[in-house]
Amino acid sequence: MAPMLEILAKLGEPRGVSETYSQLDRQAVEELIYKYCYHFDRNQPEELSQLFSIDAVVDYGPEIANLTSRKQIFEMVSKGLSETFLATSHHISNVLVSFKSETSASSTSYLYAWHKYYSREEIGHLWGGYEHEFVKIEGKWFITNLKLFGVGMQDFHRDTMHSNGRKS
Amino acid sequence: MAPMLEILAKLGEPRGVSETYSQLDRQAVEELIYKYCYHFDRNQPEELSQLFSIDAVVDYGPEIANLTSRKQIFEMVSKGLSETFLATSHHISNVLVSFKSETSASSTSYLYAWHKYYSREEIGHLWGGYEHEFVKIEGKWFITNLKLFGVGMQDFHRDTMHSNGRKS
Amino acid sequence: MAPMLEILAKLGEPRGVSETYSQLDRQAVEELIYKYCYHFDRNQPEELSQLFSIDAVVDYGPEIANLTSRKQIFEMVSKGLSETFLATSHHISNVLVSFKSETSASSTSYLYAWHKYYSREEIGHLWGGYEHEFVKIEGKWFITNLKLFGVGMQDFHRDTMHSNGRKS
Repeated sequence: MAPMLEILAKLGEPRGVSETYSQLDRQAVEELIYKYCYHFDRNQPEELSQLFSIDAVVDYGPEIANLTSRKQIFEMVSKGLSETFLATSHHISNVLVSFKSETSASSTSYLYAWHKYYSREEIGHLWGGYEHEFVKIEGKWFITNLKLFGVGMQDFHRDTMHSNGRKS
Repeated sequence: MAPMLEILAKLGEPRGVSETYSQLDRQAVEELIYKYCYHFDRNQPEELSQLFSIDAVVDYGPEIANLTSRKQIFEMVSKGLSETFLATSHHISNVLVSFKSETSASSTSYLYAWHKYYSREEIGHLWGGYEHEFVKIEGKWFITNLKLFGVGMQDFHRDTMHSNGRKS
Repeated sequence: MAPMLEILAKLGEPRGVSETYSQLDRQAVEELIYKYCYHFDRNQPEELSQLFSIDAVVDYGPEIANLTSRKQIFEMVSKGLSETFLATSHHISNVLVSFKSETSASSTSYLYAWHKYYSREEIGHLWGGYEHEFVKIEGKWFITNLKLFGVGMQDFHRDTMHSNGRKS
């Protein structure tokens, strides 16, 4: 029995080492979600793309073909930030993270996003969220899967979004 | 002196065991707030009700009689989700948790909620928050008290909400 | 080698003591951001001002001279809460904290703020965020610098805000 486990056991708490360490892993994973928004809203597609694994998949919705690499993510986000969006603000909340192993995690979170466009005056609002998958490679966490869903839209530039799975 | 306390004391940090453990308790409590929203917004009243203790009390505001059991919470939320709300999105933020003991905690948080109704086109917006109380029973945390307050409303289906206590 | 470091090293995790402790420091710092909103939105300028160091600097934007002391922060916020704002709701999200040392930290965060005014009916909305700096004095964290930036406004009472630094 390792020393830390022994101590925890003596104090009557049936927790393993991985749960103790996962506070830092959890934080790293949660920060990836925030950093995606940070770089998106500051027009930093290169820094944004570096948050993803090289083979990451991004699914922005049924109207758009999946992006299937860091390179495609960089290209699509670059295009969006230079041609479509004049300003954006992506507000994340309700982050729930699950760890499958010490190097694999997933999360669901909420998003309220504000969009100013180059092409028109109306502000586009989206109420929805993200489903993420994360992988830890050589000690560093990356987003390996991002799926966007929408619950409500107002003057948004999209017609159809993935559902949050609500039973009607 | 327990081993962990001894180690912390040697490192010069006057913290007890409960504060070390409360990181996981704090996470569990915070996740209950998010899971309430998750299940509400996905029309899962059964899963939602299981987040509450059997004798939990929910106070949605001065116009509505308190719900005083898990069963009543299930019934009221089921009714709301099938008759009133076509879609909802409950965005939580600013969560502040306090622990009274190792098995008792309370929190205050912010809510921005978006509501689409069966009965009309206008979207109802609520800016406000929750006050929660939590209890740990046999190692698992439950919501034992939920009070909703409102600061602002736009096309919301309610007239009067509890106040956040602001001095006018 | 201190006992805790020894145990972590044995378990194969190359983390120092400060990283273990910074979970509590991180929480303290994050809670300062939330408490600022809590007290602002409840018209508690005295409690709000106590979150700042005595020589704290607040920069609400290019149109307003910096506040350069806890006393000035108290006076300006008191005035705003009694003369300008009838009700407010400051929703924080996307908090990213960095520690420079054990007693110095900074953060960037998102804000969606709702404002009801004494002088008019329209609600003022702000989408933006804060940049904070924090200092730990005699074991307690304080805000020592707050800078507000705006990405979008709707019927807000201000004309010009600091930018989030987005490259156009």
